[in-house]
Order: sequence, then C-alpha cells, then structure tokens
Amino acid sequence: MIPMKLPTKIDYKKELEAASKTMIMIHDPKTLMRLIVRMIVSKVKVKHAGMILYDAQRDTYIVRISRGERGLKIPAGYARLDHKSSLIRVFSRKEYKSLSFRQNALVLDDLNKMIWQESVLNGVNNGIGELLHLAKEEMQMFSAIACVPAYCQDTLLAILLLGEKMDGEHFDQDELDFFSALASDVAMAIKNAQLFTDLKKEAERNRDLFLRTTTVLASTIEAKDRYTRGHTERVTDYALAIARQMAANGSLTFPNNFFENLYLAGLLHDIGKIAVPESILGKPGKLTEEEIKIMREHTLRGVEILKPLAELEESLKGVKYHHERYDGKGYPDGLKGDEIPIMAAIIAAADTLDAMTSDRPYRKSMDKNYAIEEIKRNSGTQFHPVVVQALVELFERGEI
Amino acid sequence: MIPMKLPTKIDYKKELEAASKTMIMIHDPKTLMRLIVRMIVSKVKVKHAGMILYDAQRDTYIVRISRGERGLKIPAGYARLDHKSSLIRVFSRKEYKSLSFRQNALVLDDLNKMIWQESVLNGVNNGIGELLHLAKEEMQMFSAIACVPAYCQDTLLAILLLGEKMDGEHFDQDELDFFSALASDVAMAIKNAQLFTDLKKEAERNRDLFLRTTTVLASTIEAKDRYTRGHTERVTDYALAIARQMAANGSLTFPNNFFENLYLAGLLHDIGKIAVPESILGKPGKLTEEEIKIMREHTLRGVEILKPLAELEESLKGVKYHHERYDGKGYPDGLKGDEIPIMAAIIAAADTLDAMTSDRPYRKSMDKNYAIEEIKRNSGTQFHPVVVQALVELFERGEI
Repeated sequence: MIPMKLPTKIDYKKELEAASKTMIMIHDPKTLMRLIVRMIVSKVKVKHAGMILYDAQRDTYIVRISRGERGLKIPAGYARLDHKSSLIRVFSRKEYKSLSFRQNALVLDDLNKMIWQESVLNGVNNGIGELLHLAKEEMQMFSAIACVPAYCQDTLLAILLLGEKMDGEHFDQDELDFFSALASDVAMAIKNAQLFTDLKKEAERNRDLFLRTTTVLASTIEAKDRYTRGHTERVTDYALAIARQMAANGSLTFPNNFFENLYLAGLLHDIGKIAVPESILGKPGKLTEEEIKIMREHTLRGVEILKPLAELEESLKGVKYHHERYDGKGYPDGLKGDEIPIMAAIIAAADTLDAMTSDRPYRKSMDKNYAIEEIKRNSGTQFHPVVVQALVELFERGEI
Repeated sequence: MIPMKLPTKIDYKKELEAASKTMIMIHDPKTLMRLIVRMIVSKVKVKHAGMILYDAQRDTYIVRISRGERGLKIPAGYARLDHKSSLIRVFSRKEYKSLSFRQNALVLDDLNKMIWQESVLNGVNNGIGELLHLAKEEMQMFSAIACVPAYCQDTLLAILLLGEKMDGEHFDQDELDFFSALASDVAMAIKNAQLFTDLKKEAERNRDLFLRTTTVLASTIEAKDRYTRGHTERVTDYALAIARQMAANGSLTFPNNFFENLYLAGLLHDIGKIAVPESILGKPGKLTEEEIKIMREHTLRGVEILKPLAELEESLKGVKYHHERYDGKGYPDGLKGDEIPIMAAIIAAADTLDAMTSDRPYRKSMDKNYAIEEIKRNSGTQFHPVVVQALVELFERGEI
C-alpha cells in the first residue's frame, strides 16, 4: 500500500498570533491591507483574497484584491464602495441587526440557502431577499466564496474577501474560525493605524501652522518698513542656497535641523526692526551717530522679541549675530572668525547681497555682478571666506 | 465516594487573545500596567503579581506591584530600577546573551539550580554566579517566584513578576506558556503605547509652539506702539471673562473652540496697527480726517496680515469687526446689531474698557468706575446689551 501523504496541518493559532503582532506595528492602512491579503493567500491556500477597508476620512470603503493565482482584478468602478453597496449593507449592524451568519462569515452556499428561505417565507419581492440577492451578485463579481466582516464598536471596518481554495474544497471549521479571529485582529490593527494616522497628521498640521505663523511674524516687519518688502524671503533663499552649496563642497558638516533653523533665522533676522522708529528706518539721508546706535539695536531687540520661543534657540544665533564681521569689527559683540556662528555668517553674506541689489531709502539698487565683486573683495575681512566661496560658485553657475 | 471537584481549567489562549486586544487600545503605560497586573492576579490565581516597565524617556525601569491577597508593597527605594539592578542585568540580552531560561521565564527553583551549577563549575566568586545570586535576592525582595521578560528588538521592555500561586503549587507548563505569550503581547502593547505617547506629545508641543508664536506675533505691535504695552493681554483677559460670564448667564451657547478663537482674536485684534505709521499712532493731538482714515484701516490690515493662517478664520471676525457699533455707525462695514459677530462685540467692549482706563497719547487714563458707567450709557447704541450686562456683572462682583 502506498502511504497517503497527509497535507501539513496549518497551526492557525500560531499564524494568527504572529500576524496580529506584525499588523499592529504597521500604521499605514495600505501596507496593512497588502500584508493581510498576502498572508491569507499564502497561508490558507486560496486562489485569491481581497479586502474591503473602511476609509473614515471619506466615509467610503476601498477595495483591494491580491493578484493571487488567477491574477484577478477589481472590476472597473468598484475600487471604492459606498454605503449603498449591498455587501456593505448586509454587514451593517446598524441597518440589519437581525441578519446573522454562521461563524460571523458569509459563505456563498449559506447565502443561497438564506435567499431561498426568504423567498419561501416572505415572497421574492421582500427587501431582505433582494438585498441578499444583490450581495450575492457583488460577491460573485469579486469572485469571493466567503466574506468575513471586521467590526469596531458596531462600525464595519473591513470585510475579508476569500476566493476558492486551491484544492477546490469548502472552507472547514478551523479555517472559518481563523478568518473570524483574523478579521477581529484586522479591525484592531486598522483602528490602531487610523489613530496613528490621525495623530501624525495632527502633529504635522500643528508644525505647519507654527511655520506659517512664523512667516506671518516675519511679514510684520515688511508691513512696517516698505524697503524690506520681499527682503526676508530673498535673504532666506540666498542663505539656504549658500548652505546647500557649502554642504555640497564638503566644507562643513551641518548639525541636525541646521537647514530648518537657518530657514527660520533667515525669516526672522530683521524682526527686531519692529522696535526701531520709522523715522530712522525710512530716513532718506545719512543717519546720525545716535540713530546708528538705535538702528544697530535691532539684532538684540530681535532676540528679545523671540525669547519666548525656546525652540528657536539655534536660529537666534543667526538673528543676533548677522551683523558681526569676520575681522571682529561687527556688532553686537565684535565676534571674530569662527567665533561667529556659521549660520550668522551665511545670513550676513545673503543679507548684504540682497541689500546691495535692492533700492534703499538713501540709494538705488546696484548691479548683482558688482555686488558679488564687492563681497569677494571683502572676503576674510567682512565675510567668512568659505561662505563667500560658496556664494561665488552659485553666482557663476547662474543659480543666485 | 465523594466526587472530586475538578478545578475549572482556564482557556489561556482565549484569555490571551482578549487581553491582547484590550491592551493594544490602551495608550497610557500606567493604565496598561495596572490592567496587566490585575489580569494576572485574577486569571492565574497568584497571590500577587507585579511588573517592571521600561521608561524610555528616563532610561530606567518603573516597578509596580498589585495589592493582591497579601497587600504586598514595593520596598522603599525600589519604585525605580536602573541598569545596575541584577534582575535587569540578568535579562539584558545585550549583556548576557549566553544566559537562557526555561520557557523564557526565570523560575526561582531553576535559579537555585543555576547558582549551584555556576558555583560547582566556576567557583563561588564567578561573576555570573554572583549576578544570579543578587538577582535571586531581588526576586525574593519582590516576593516573586517567577519572572518573565518582554523584549522588543533585544531591548528589555518589561518583566512580569509573579508571586506564589494561591494553591501553593508550582507553575505548570500551560501557565508558563501563557506568561511567555502574555509578555510578548505586553511588549507589543508597551511599544505601541510609547509610540502613541510620543506622537501625542509632539502634536501638543507643536500646538503649544503655535500658540506661543502667536503671542510673540501679538507682542510685535507692543514693540512698536508703547501705548499698547500690555493692552492686548488685558483686552484678551477681559474678553474671556465676559464670554465666560455670558455662558454662565445662559445668554448664549458658544460654538466649539469659541474660547480658543476668542483668545487668539483678543491677542491679535490690533495687529494691523503694525501697518499704521508711528506718526499717527503716537500723535499727541487730534487726528486729521485723513489720519483717522488711515488709523481705521488697522482692522482690515490685520485681516490681511493674518490671511495666510486659514486656521484663524473664526478669530479674524474678531479682528475685522471689533470697531463695529451696535447701532451700525462703526467700521469697517457698518454692521448692525446681531450682524456683528458676537466675538467682535465682546472684544469691542473689552477694548474700550482697557483703552479708557489706560494712558493714551492724547489723554490720561480714566477711573474704571467711570469707564463702566460710560459703557453702560452706550449699551444698545455703541455696545451689544448682552455683552454690557455681563461686563457690569463682572465689575460689580469685583472680578474685572
């Protein structure tokens, strides 16, 4: 006698435990769906599997079907289902509390029986009979022979769609148990993923709100001083370009968040001018010594205004020291060479370039060619040589 | 013969599944610990159970022990353990890769055997022998007869501490299996909870950062116009007090977020003055008609400045209309009565109260008593009567 080769029995409990653990750590619903569908196809040996997933944001359901053996695809127009779908309605606990299915799963064979019962008991035109009939058609359209719903507090979160088994057999009790438990884990994982997505979005939204508020804050100085219109934005652009070039040249490795901090410093470098009288800011002639003193206070006044925002600590270096000079003859502290934070040295060059190439109350704008020559000439005295080098390279390539 | 009463067998798999699902939805580590410890005590019938939980933020371990039957407590000084604790070290995969325990659990009986083996094989003064000895002492201090570690990627996230069983028996295989699986679920739940906590904190931090940036934004107008020093803050306080009083009186039900929006509107109501020349803002004498026109533009300029922040839409009503009058003679749109958003009507009264009781370039401050009388006299013409009523009530109770 040839010994029968027994099929290896699958330990569904173990599979479930492993799956559940993987699922819960995946916070992207799409990846989650792909994972679940793949697992069903490979572990239960069905020809294909799919999933209908609730999209809370749009209040619709997304359909995803694995390629499986047959390379089955979602019928055109069925990538999304809404609450009018019969399959969704059949499983809606709010709508049809009375409908109950074996093992919490809707198997095609059972469905045929239920339709027959309904037609016998209540006549063909009965609402439930018709609903079941339409649901059956939808199942067939997806080539599903069983559907397993997943709920979270009576909200239908997902439906597993199961195609025929490879061996053509019916699903046995163990398998349906597995699907039911899996569906429940799926619901949990989806809920978890949705909470994560929501929180993450909230964090990002709030961060974005902060950045936009900073931009508005920066714009206030432009509402006051018409000569700075567009100045902060241009300085920020120049500064970021210079820093990128320096990084590309390998002349410096920047710490974490350097670019974001530089961006904020660029936007806010002149915010202290809010505290400088308009009569000085807009004076067409030469400033007196006293006026120069007040004008120069804008670096420290900027720091003062921004002090409540401890998160800007790094950026404040750019605000405070963007008028220092490489030779130590700048203000407010007369720092020299590498004592000057590189962020401030970058803004200093960017600031000068834009100031020279824009109209000012006391003079007309200069040609950019001339401005770059001037900055080059002052490399190592007013400006940091490495910064100037990056600036010149950008200019020569026409990128500034 | 008296029939033996068989103890009801516990379905650990089922318990585990239920526990895992509850755990994963709890995102507060402390609640999670309480839940797990309680479950162990009630399901496995141990005299007490406890848990040592990794606190990633402080890089230490927190100890929590259930009251259980004996009302056991954590020994003084052991509410937190650090990496020097022998129990922590024994389970550190990074430190002692070679140590392996039956069922991934450290049972007191096994520990005695291991200590004996170490002393026979390597002598008493061997490092591992001593470590095991100290770990045993720590277990005894917590009255634990078994410890089950929980890892996430080789990081020790938790140790379950298990006291004696009620029936005095040893833990059987089923129970140790259960603990091991439970520990693994615990690790997952803890990891999940930590991720949640981190994300939530980030969202809150970013929100807070936005609010503080708004405060800085509001303060810029005070850096420019010395007469408004403290004005925005006081107006905001008055406005919030009036709204609270109105809510208490039941005169209005406010929509969601009304108070936060009012707070922001209060802070930002005069931001448009950034765009008004200092010569007009600080003029000691009477303003010319042209100057009045420019001054009045501050409401619309405020809206313009804040436009990039769509989130402030509701607050902008307060910014734009805080100079409207109940009788329709205000600006910028001459709105009348209930056409004026209630937020703006509240700020209008708060603004006037503070303006009258503060020094201005063109006059000294007035007595608050007199100011309130003036506002009362203009109720129904300049001011919304319901707002005035709330303001008067606050004043009479000495709360404003």
